[in-house]
Amino acid sequence: MPRYKITLEYDGTPFCGWQRQADRMSVQQALEEAIFRFSGEMVTTQASGRTDAGVHALGQVVHFDLSTDRDPFRVREALNYHLRPHPAAVIECEIAPDTFEARFSALARHYEYRILNRRAPAALERHQVWHVPMPLDADRMHEAAQKILGRHDFTTFRSSECQANSPIRTLDHFAVRRELDHVVVTASARSFLHHQVRSMVGSLKLVGEGKWTPADFRAALDAADRSRCGAMAPSTGLYFVRADY
Amino acid sequence: MPRYKITLEYDGTPFCGWQRQADRMSVQQALEEAIFRFSGEMVTTQASGRTDAGVHALGQVVHFDLSTDRDPFRVREALNYHLRPHPAAVIECEIAPDTFEARFSALARHYEYRILNRRAPAALERHQVWHVPMPLDADRMHEAAQKILGRHDFTTFRSSECQANSPIRTLDHFAVRRELDHVVVTASARSFLHHQVRSMVGSLKLVGEGKWTPADFRAALDAADRSRCGAMAPSTGLYFVRADY
Repeated sequence: MPRYKITLEYDGTPFCGWQRQADRMSVQQALEEAIFRFSGEMVTTQASGRTDAGVHALGQVVHFDLSTDRDPFRVREALNYHLRPHPAAVIECEIAPDTFEARFSALARHYEYRILNRRAPAALERHQVWHVPMPLDADRMHEAAQKILGRHDFTTFRSSECQANSPIRTLDHFAVRRELDHVVVTASARSFLHHQVRSMVGSLKLVGEGKWTPADFRAALDAADRSRCGAMAPSTGLYFVRADY
Repeated sequence: MPRYKITLEYDGTPFCGWQRQADRMSVQQALEEAIFRFSGEMVTTQASGRTDAGVHALGQVVHFDLSTDRDPFRVREALNYHLRPHPAAVIECEIAPDTFEARFSALARHYEYRILNRRAPAALERHQVWHVPMPLDADRMHEAAQKILGRHDFTTFRSSECQANSPIRTLDHFAVRRELDHVVVTASARSFLHHQVRSMVGSLKLVGEGKWTPADFRAALDAADRSRCGAMAPSTGLYFVRADY
């Protein structure tokens, strides 16, 4: 049973998220149907990170097993043919060792969050950014972000529906930069809690608007209290960038 | 009758192009309806450049007259409110002199054409690039582009339906650069013929694939013969970037 490791780009807009649901199209279902169409095999795929509805991926990593050895280049081509018209594309495909697990073998996960920070709403990027019309101070947001690096209880920035056993995570990188009209937030960790990035970005926005100081942001973390979190940032601006193994 | 000059961003995907048509939604109609909704006035707007169906704009310039003086900031806000849900947004709005004409006062127009050059199809950018799976030599394309700068008869790169009186145009800037998986073509001129940029890019692709030399590209121009043009590049990759006055 050869194991295939693929890197997947997708536009999260029309999907209900990564994970299969009974009544709506998920990335997982689109992918598993594409695998079935070229191989005749019904497989269960496993992703590095489960993205929510509307969240995009530049480099989601997924693994699955097939019963026969196939040329990875041809697997990629066949998947891209059968994925149409879904907005998902296999960027890379390779054979991985049997011990490789897209979810459990990941050493680091990298996310990016894009804010369009101007008065006018987004036109070209309307499904790909969070539009924040009030001017944001990206330097101040970055200063705040630095204050929560490291190992902490992230209960404040965790969905009430999060199923992880522990709220403790180690945030290795969390940075904010301005690129003209955009404010770009990048975050890296071995793993994240459910809604963690969107929760952190929603609270960072309050810092950018001057409603919170960087110290307030840190205090919200230290409170370990979900009610201290700012309004969560929408899914449209979030990208799963890549996973390291 | 104060004259308003606006800068407009739009996603060309759902529109039949800039210009009004009887049976399909154009950018012009969406904009004129938005103007009517906040001002009660039916006006005719004039754009710097008429974009075709599927062509995008980062900075289309448009002018129109209203019977009363209004704060340009409020005009912009009202237009953006009433343009919804169309993917078009007014980035800037100002009062212009009566003599200003978005189309006829323009001293230069700038376009960008974006090619996604990788095996895998576009997912996130599926309506915003031209997907070319075969590797392109961007340096060679740039070399070819330099060979047609200046004042020429552009009949080869002109739609057979072009209504301009003369096929003579002056190409001031035409450059190709690679940005990772993207090949970006930029073009500037006082004015362009109908389908000129897409025709030039379609032929440049042949150079990038090694099917044409840069000298072939120049020879195609010199032939002044539409049948010598390579297959025209699709509208999805083309952006009207800005106009100078």
